[in-house]
Amino acid sequence: MDLGLLLGFIGTWLLIAWALIAGGEAQAYVDVPSVILVCGATTTVVIFCFPLPAVKRIFAVTKSVAFAKVQDPQKLIEDLVSYAEIARRDGILSLENVTKDIDDAFIVHGIQMAVDGVDPELIETIMESELENLTERHDAGKALFETVGKYAPAFGMIGTLIGLVVMLKNMDDPAKIGPGMAIALLTTLYGAVIANAVALPLADRMAKRSGEEVLAKTIIIKGVMAIQSGDNPRIVERKLRTFLPPNMRADSDAEKEAA
Amino acid sequence: MDLGLLLGFIGTWLLIAWALIAGGEAQAYVDVPSVILVCGATTTVVIFCFPLPAVKRIFAVTKSVAFAKVQDPQKLIEDLVSYAEIARRDGILSLENVTKDIDDAFIVHGIQMAVDGVDPELIETIMESELENLTERHDAGKALFETVGKYAPAFGMIGTLIGLVVMLKNMDDPAKIGPGMAIALLTTLYGAVIANAVALPLADRMAKRSGEEVLAKTIIIKGVMAIQSGDNPRIVERKLRTFLPPNMRADSDAEKEAA
Amino acid sequence: MDLGLLLGFIGTWLLIAWALIAGGEAQAYVDVPSVILVCGATTTVVIFCFPLPAVKRIFAVTKSVAFAKVQDPQKLIEDLVSYAEIARRDGILSLENVTKDIDDAFIVHGIQMAVDGVDPELIETIMESELENLTERHDAGKALFETVGKYAPAFGMIGTLIGLVVMLKNMDDPAKIGPGMAIALLTTLYGAVIANAVALPLADRMAKRSGEEVLAKTIIIKGVMAIQSGDNPRIVERKLRTFLPPNMRADSDAEKEAA
Amino acid sequence: MDLGLLLGFIGTWLLIAWALIAGGEAQAYVDVPSVILVCGATTTVVIFCFPLPAVKRIFAVTKSVAFAKVQDPQKLIEDLVSYAEIARRDGILSLENVTKDIDDAFIVHGIQMAVDGVDPELIETIMESELENLTERHDAGKALFETVGKYAPAFGMIGTLIGLVVMLKNMDDPAKIGPGMAIALLTTLYGAVIANAVALPLADRMAKRSGEEVLAKTIIIKGVMAIQSGDNPRIVERKLRTFLPPNMRADSDAEKEAA
Amino acid sequence: MDLGLLLGFIGTWLLIAWALIAGGEAQAYVDVPSVILVCGATTTVVIFCFPLPAVKRIFAVTKSVAFAKVQDPQKLIEDLVSYAEIARRDGILSLENVTKDIDDAFIVHGIQMAVDGVDPELIETIMESELENLTERHDAGKALFETVGKYAPAFGMIGTLIGLVVMLKNMDDPAKIGPGMAIALLTTLYGAVIANAVALPLADRMAKRSGEEVLAKTIIIKGVMAIQSGDNPRIVERKLRTFLPPNMRADSDAEKEAA
Repeated sequence: MDLGLLLGFIGTWLLIAWALIAGGEAQAYVDVPSVILVCGATTTVVIFCFPLPAVKRIFAVTKSVAFAKVQDPQKLIEDLVSYAEIARRDGILSLENVTKDIDDAFIVHGIQMAVDGVDPELIETIMESELENLTERHDAGKALFETVGKYAPAFGMIGTLIGLVVMLKNMDDPAKIGPGMAIALLTTLYGAVIANAVALPLADRMAKRSGEEVLAKTIIIKGVMAIQSGDNPRIVERKLRTFLPPNMRADSDAEKEAA
Repeated sequence: MDLGLLLGFIGTWLLIAWALIAGGEAQAYVDVPSVILVCGATTTVVIFCFPLPAVKRIFAVTKSVAFAKVQDPQKLIEDLVSYAEIARRDGILSLENVTKDIDDAFIVHGIQMAVDGVDPELIETIMESELENLTERHDAGKALFETVGKYAPAFGMIGTLIGLVVMLKNMDDPAKIGPGMAIALLTTLYGAVIANAVALPLADRMAKRSGEEVLAKTIIIKGVMAIQSGDNPRIVERKLRTFLPPNMRADSDAEKEAA
Repeated sequence: MDLGLLLGFIGTWLLIAWALIAGGEAQAYVDVPSVILVCGATTTVVIFCFPLPAVKRIFAVTKSVAFAKVQDPQKLIEDLVSYAEIARRDGILSLENVTKDIDDAFIVHGIQMAVDGVDPELIETIMESELENLTERHDAGKALFETVGKYAPAFGMIGTLIGLVVMLKNMDDPAKIGPGMAIALLTTLYGAVIANAVALPLADRMAKRSGEEVLAKTIIIKGVMAIQSGDNPRIVERKLRTFLPPNMRADSDAEKEAA
Repeated sequence: MDLGLLLGFIGTWLLIAWALIAGGEAQAYVDVPSVILVCGATTTVVIFCFPLPAVKRIFAVTKSVAFAKVQDPQKLIEDLVSYAEIARRDGILSLENVTKDIDDAFIVHGIQMAVDGVDPELIETIMESELENLTERHDAGKALFETVGKYAPAFGMIGTLIGLVVMLKNMDDPAKIGPGMAIALLTTLYGAVIANAVALPLADRMAKRSGEEVLAKTIIIKGVMAIQSGDNPRIVERKLRTFLPPNMRADSDAEKEAA
Repeated sequence: MDLGLLLGFIGTWLLIAWALIAGGEAQAYVDVPSVILVCGATTTVVIFCFPLPAVKRIFAVTKSVAFAKVQDPQKLIEDLVSYAEIARRDGILSLENVTKDIDDAFIVHGIQMAVDGVDPELIETIMESELENLTERHDAGKALFETVGKYAPAFGMIGTLIGLVVMLKNMDDPAKIGPGMAIALLTTLYGAVIANAVALPLADRMAKRSGEEVLAKTIIIKGVMAIQSGDNPRIVERKLRTFLPPNMRADSDAEKEAA
């Protein structure tokens, strides 16, 4: 579960909700036809722009970005090194028992193939294909949320124009102008909130998460390949550490090696 | 027929129509001079910006994007492999009978050339030239719809300014302000709807469809070339699968090969 | 004469003129000081941004883009092949008589140099330098019109702000607000029309025309070089056809060669 | 301490404060709920967009950009050359005493490693890793402030819409319109000030400072490497001067060498 | 002195001044606090964004762009060829007398170094370093004016919001609305004028001038190098002409060589 993302999302919405309630008239902000127009038209336009399978996949991708455990690369390296130690000490087949206790399906699949004696090149190809798959889903998710962030305010504005036209046409009673305009503005508000409190931040976050997952999965692939080839655990660790970003690497191995 | 595109298009317009009718005064949104100004000026500006032949071709391209059957790459590979099997078993000339049952003109043309003994290099050149042709038409279509999406709101704003000037000039009767302003805003509404519910989504969709068609046509070209050279059907399949995006490829061949 | 461009330009302006007249008060849209401010300041800012020679050349470039005959590449190739046939049959000197009947100064200059026995490399250098010249002028024209399209709306807005300030300052008589605002809005209208009905479409068109002219001139250069070297007319045609975009090429030579 | 940055920051805020007070009603600009909405939602959206560790690091980075001493590259080269002279005259171990008087931790760490006889390649790797680290932190800081500069005005607009809707709904008392609208506009004002007087200039400045620090640190790395290898101080100076931008270099070494 | 730039600048300001006076109330546009806010905050933000030395250098760069004589490349080549003739006829030392009559310090410095027998490679390095210096100053000037063009309208909007809030708060007297709004709008007007009539055109012009100066200085460098090496003046001319843009080159050398 990505704490920052959830905190940020919930916090943003609590603030907006508080702002709506603070005025003492929260029900003034609810207009069902406006909600249907903005949310509906944004959805149909996304279906218009994107192939259906991409649209269907979006909930799964969003859920995985929001709830998937972010793997700590340092912890990951420690785990992979410990598997390498087991493989070296007790033979690679002994990893079969270990896989039962591993949560991450990607590591399990990799180690299982190594245990089964699948050709190393094929292991690498299969795992990299799964990784490519993942980035592609993240990229498609990002593009989809950017599209939402582009069309939601546009349909918000269209809704406001539709509301303004009728209101202005019947402007003989000035007392009605205010409430009519209030309702007309709601679609603009909905569009702005959908774009800035949901779609655009999700697109930004997905791009950053993609980078984090590619790093973790790349470390796993290199780790499984090293375990499979029976490398010395110390060498496995050194190899994997080169994938860490400099600020993580500096903490640990610089001092060790300098010693 | 591209279900998503049509669903998205019809859904978007139903929602807009519903929003117009829901206010109880749908006729308030119809102003023929405003329609003529926005649609007319957008059309003439597109003719201004683009060479005439490109403008003429746009309807054909749009129709083909909206109604052409999207080819499933997996089904396509199966078909091509089955043709390769026939060619290998009964000789390449036996494909002549098969072509009668194939819908796709591109495959038929390719196989026909192979059956006619046309030089392989020439087959490839001709088929790739048709593919280039197709992408070029899609690119031109995308550019044209983006131009519509840029100028329609601009002429919407120009129409609103034209309406505002006359309305403001005669503002001695305050009761007329509302209706005058309502009509002035219509062109802005029309421009925003044309851009966001037609032109820009079509441009987005065309770019994505172009990618799908390039994939299908590339698979066909490689398939015809392999059939022509008398490759083993199993090898043909393996070659063609490398063109599948990873998420399609992973389903099938990874497991097969891993077995 | 580029029919599409002129149709588009005239059509756009007829529609705008019709919209102005349709309201029954066309004179409401004419305010000489506003015209002077927007057109004047846009012109002076362009002189500010661009070196004077570039500004001076712009009328010539615009006229040539609007009125120059668009050369049909297929017709051009036929002509060049026919000259190649004459040169091969009657000797290159016999082309001297032919040049009298050719309209295009670029072809005439090229053939004349070939007839005069100018060194082939030098012919190519001179012709390519003229072509570079042409693209450079088109690029400069595009940049200049984009600058107009950027500053005209900006000075339109500045004019409106200038008008609003005086109007608001004297707002003691509410009856005057309307007409004052109407005049203030005129500069915004002028700026939007200059940008969207003249400058930006011309910039777009110039970029596209540049591409068409580069194609035609490249075919001419290659054709003159082939004529000069005494190539077989059939080979000349084949060489030149490779410069056609795929959609023109596919019509003709694919079938011919496949035959 | 970066004088320009602090002067610019304080000056901008003094001017804004003066503008608020000049109207005689500074308290009109303080609305606690508006401050909470704009600042709060901008903060939560940043937490939504960025991984938590990146958000936490931002204060340290900002403080270091604002208060860190900007190193003068020319002074730096003089210092490094003087250390090279000491090392050459009295042996590299004599630098141990010198390091006590050096402020810059990066130089001290580098020289200390050289004195300790750490392998030259390792010294370079460690120092470059620290430099990479620094640029990465600056880049992340720039991206974060750009995100603030994007969402602060967006939530300012959302706040204004929220205020407008309630105000318009209760528009029966025209006397209340003004004050209600005044408060509604405050969030737009806050958003614009946060973006233009804090976030966007900080993002710009961080990019420029990053360039200055990379230059200084690169000179230090090359200097330490040259000291470690016992180069002639004159050669050290010449090597380091090549890293100076041309306008600094021209002052000094051109004349010297020309002499 | 760059006639176009000055004409454009003065013309733009005369038109704006005329528009302000034409309304008969030029004093309505002068509000000292608004001037201080917009100009002041734009200046302090620029000091915030840019290192102080870059800000200081900006006046010198602007003055040099506005008043420096634009060198005609054709005239420059003629001059350099005549120096080459003198050097070839009377020996390179005879150029010492010539340099007294040359205005351009860059040519004088180059020839002086050649006369003094400075190593050719060093001459080239020094001159290119001065050229790099120049482009760098122009680039920094362009970036600085673009920053002004970005923040001036932003602080104009902030000023208008500040004015609106106070005005709306005290809206009990409707007669005051007009004048209050007029003053509030002034900062938006100032910001738009600073951006569109000063900063953005200067940024555009600086980029174009940079290109012109790089051309002139490159010709001078190549010319001095050729003079120094004692090349035949005819060869010097031919070499230098290759640096002319095609439209200048075509006039002259094509015909000459074709002859």
